[in-house]
Amino acid sequence: MSVTYPAGFTAAATQAGQKSSGAADLAIVVNTGPAPAAAGVFTPNRFCAAPVRWSREVLALGGTPKVVVFNAGGANACTGDAGYADTEATAREAAACLGLTPTEVLVGSTGLIGKRLNMTGLLLGIAAASTELAVDGGQAAAEAIITTDTHPKTTQAELAGGWRVGGMAKGAGMIAPGMATLLVVITTDAVTDNATAQRAIAQAAELTFNRIDTDGCMSTNDTLLLLASGASGVRVSEAELTNAVARACFDLAQQCVGDAEGASHDIAINVVNAATETGALAVARAVARSNLFKCAVFGNDPNWGRILSAAGTVPADIAPYEPTQVDVSINGVMICRGGGIGEPRELVDMTARRVEVIIDLKAGDQAATIYTNDLTYDYVKENAEYPT
Amino acid sequence: MSVTYPAGFTAAATQAGQKSSGAADLAIVVNTGPAPAAAGVFTPNRFCAAPVRWSREVLALGGTPKVVVFNAGGANACTGDAGYADTEATAREAAACLGLTPTEVLVGSTGLIGKRLNMTGLLLGIAAASTELAVDGGQAAAEAIITTDTHPKTTQAELAGGWRVGGMAKGAGMIAPGMATLLVVITTDAVTDNATAQRAIAQAAELTFNRIDTDGCMSTNDTLLLLASGASGVRVSEAELTNAVARACFDLAQQCVGDAEGASHDIAINVVNAATETGALAVARAVARSNLFKCAVFGNDPNWGRILSAAGTVPADIAPYEPTQVDVSINGVMICRGGGIGEPRELVDMTARRVEVIIDLKAGDQAATIYTNDLTYDYVKENAEYPT
Repeated sequence: MSVTYPAGFTAAATQAGQKSSGAADLAIVVNTGPAPAAAGVFTPNRFCAAPVRWSREVLALGGTPKVVVFNAGGANACTGDAGYADTEATAREAAACLGLTPTEVLVGSTGLIGKRLNMTGLLLGIAAASTELAVDGGQAAAEAIITTDTHPKTTQAELAGGWRVGGMAKGAGMIAPGMATLLVVITTDAVTDNATAQRAIAQAAELTFNRIDTDGCMSTNDTLLLLASGASGVRVSEAELTNAVARACFDLAQQCVGDAEGASHDIAINVVNAATETGALAVARAVARSNLFKCAVFGNDPNWGRILSAAGTVPADIAPYEPTQVDVSINGVMICRGGGIGEPRELVDMTARRVEVIIDLKAGDQAATIYTNDLTYDYVKENAEYPT
Repeated sequence: MSVTYPAGFTAAATQAGQKSSGAADLAIVVNTGPAPAAAGVFTPNRFCAAPVRWSREVLALGGTPKVVVFNAGGANACTGDAGYADTEATAREAAACLGLTPTEVLVGSTGLIGKRLNMTGLLLGIAAASTELAVDGGQAAAEAIITTDTHPKTTQAELAGGWRVGGMAKGAGMIAPGMATLLVVITTDAVTDNATAQRAIAQAAELTFNRIDTDGCMSTNDTLLLLASGASGVRVSEAELTNAVARACFDLAQQCVGDAEGASHDIAINVVNAATETGALAVARAVARSNLFKCAVFGNDPNWGRILSAAGTVPADIAPYEPTQVDVSINGVMICRGGGIGEPRELVDMTARRVEVIIDLKAGDQAATIYTNDLTYDYVKENAEYPT
C-alpha cells in the first residue's frame, strides 16, 4: 500500500514520456486529510536540481503543500532557468488539475543530470494521473519512480493508538550522505503540525538516509518529504512521530542499500567505543568510502589492513583514539587486535551477502554505523554504460 | 640509471624472500658522496608502518642517513612492536654490513598490510646486496621495489651547471594525497644541506605526489626520500634544487598515474579561475574521487552532470563560486556552460587514454590540477583478488 496505507491519501501513476523504456515514470500523491501538514529535507548539493529549489521555496513559504509530483527519467538538474520554469509549469498543471494553487505542489525528479524533461509528455501525464487518484494507488506510485532500482521500495506500519505510517522510495546509486540519491515520501494519518513534522523528518533523515553510503556520490536531487493527513484523529507526540518516521526511513534506507547498483554484499560498518559520535561517524564514513576495502569485500577477502588504512586518514582531532588499541572484527572474528594481527583470516566467512564490521576504538562510549556495499564489476558496468 | 645517475651513489638489488613470485624484492641505495644530505616526507596515516616510524625518527635525530633499504612483498604495517623490531633489525644489519650505525639507515616497505616480514630472508638479502653495490645498480633497484606496478619507474636529468638528479618510484594502487602509496628515492649530486633538502622535498611532494589520486585511498607506507651526495661539487640554490626535485617527482608521479591498477584512462582535472588554490584543489579532489564520474570515463561517456554533482559537494566557504557560472570542458568541448547544458556531448571524443577536464569556476584567478584514473573492471578485479 506504500504511501496510501495511512488514511487520507490518494495516489496515481502513469507513463509521461520520460523513461525511454515506456514504463510508468510519473507519480502523484495527494493529501486529502482534514488536518494536513508537510515537511521535507533536501540535498545540500550546490548544483541542486530545479525541483529541489522549488520544493524548498514552497515549504519555506510556511503554507502546507498537499500534493507531491515525482517523475523518473530525468533529473531536471543543471538545466538552468528553463529547467526551473519546467518545474514551475509542472506544479501549475498539477494545481490546475486538482483545484489548488501551485505553491501547494511539491515536485521531485530523478534521472540523468543535464537534460531537459519532455514537458509535453509530463503535463499530459499529470492531467491523466489526476483523474486516476485512488486510495489504493500507492503501489503504482512506488513503481513509477524507480530508475536503476530493480524493485520498488515501500514501507508501512500500524502504530499503537490506531495511527499509521507509510512510505515509498527510489534509490540505487549516487547514494551518499546529504542524502542518498532518493525520492522519498513518508505519509502518516497522525495529527501534527508543519514545525513538528519538519523536526521529525530532519532527525529521521540524520539517523537513516544520512547513514547509508553506497558509492560516496552525493546527488543533486535528494528529496525526502513527510505528509501528515490527520485522518486518524490521533494526536501524537513529537517523540512518537519521530520514532515512527525514523523506523519507516530506516526500512526504506536498508532496502536502498540492499538494491544498490551491482552490489553483491551489504556492509554494516559499526564504529564503537569512540570518544564522540561525530568521530565514530567520520571513521565509519572513511572506511565506507575505501574502494580498496569495498573491492576486497567483493572478493570475500577479510582485508582488515584496508580498514585500518582508511580509518587512519581521519585526523586525531576529529576522532581521537590510540592506533595500537584498535580492534577490528569482521563477521564475528577479531581479525585485528590492538592495531595488529589478530585471529587468522581463514576463520572469516564472507560468503553471505551481509558483512558486519566492528571497529573498536577503545576511546570512549559513543558509536555509529554506516551502511554501504561492495565495489563490483556490475557497479562499474552499470555506471560505465548508464545512458547519457 | 635511476638513482645512480648522479655521481656519488651505488645501489644493488636481490631476492630476499618477500615476493612469492621469487622476483627481486630488496633494494639498497648508498650515498657515497663527500657532502651527504638527507631528507624525507612520509604518509600522515595514523596507522603508518613500522619503517615509516623508524625513518621519521632517524631523520628527526638530525644526523645524515646515507643508506636506504627498501623491500617489496610486505608493508610491515599494523604489525605492532614485533614489526618495529623487524625494521630496527633491518637497519642494524645494513649498518653492520656497511660499517655504519643503524641510525644512518632509512627503511621503507611496501606490500600487504598486517603481515610480518620474512626476516630470515630479508637479513640474508641485505648481506648479499651489500656486497654487490655498484654505480650501475640503479635500474635493478628500481625493478626490485615494484609490486602491482607493470614496470619500474625511474627518472633522471642533467641540470645546467653540471649536476644531476635521479630517482626511482613504485606505486600503482592505494594512491591518494598524503601521499600516493609509494616508495620513492630522489638522488642528486648537488651540494646542499639537510634543512634545505627537507624544504625542497616537502614542497616538491605537495606539488606532485600530493596531486595524484588514483583511488582515493591513503597508504600506510608512503615514503619519499631525497639524498644529496655533493659529488658534483656544485652548490645549488634552494630554488634550483626544489625545481629540479619537483620535476623529477612530477615525472615519477605521472608514471604512477599512467600505470595505475586497471586504468584505461589518465584524467587531468584542471580547476581554473578559483578564488583560492585551496578551493581549486578541493573541487578537483572531489571530482577525482567520484566513482560515478570515473566509471563514466571508463565508458567513454562525457557525463558532465557527475562532474558538477561532485563539485557541488564542496562547501561554499572552502570554494566560493556561483553554480550558475561554472563551465566544464572535456577534451576541448565546453559541454557545460553556466552550470547548464553546453555543446552536444556527441562532440566529445574520449577514446584516447588521456582525458582533460577543465572546470572554470569564474570566481578568481587561482588554479590547481589533480591527476587521476578511470574506474574499471580491471581495478575491481585486481583489488578483489589481491592476495591477503
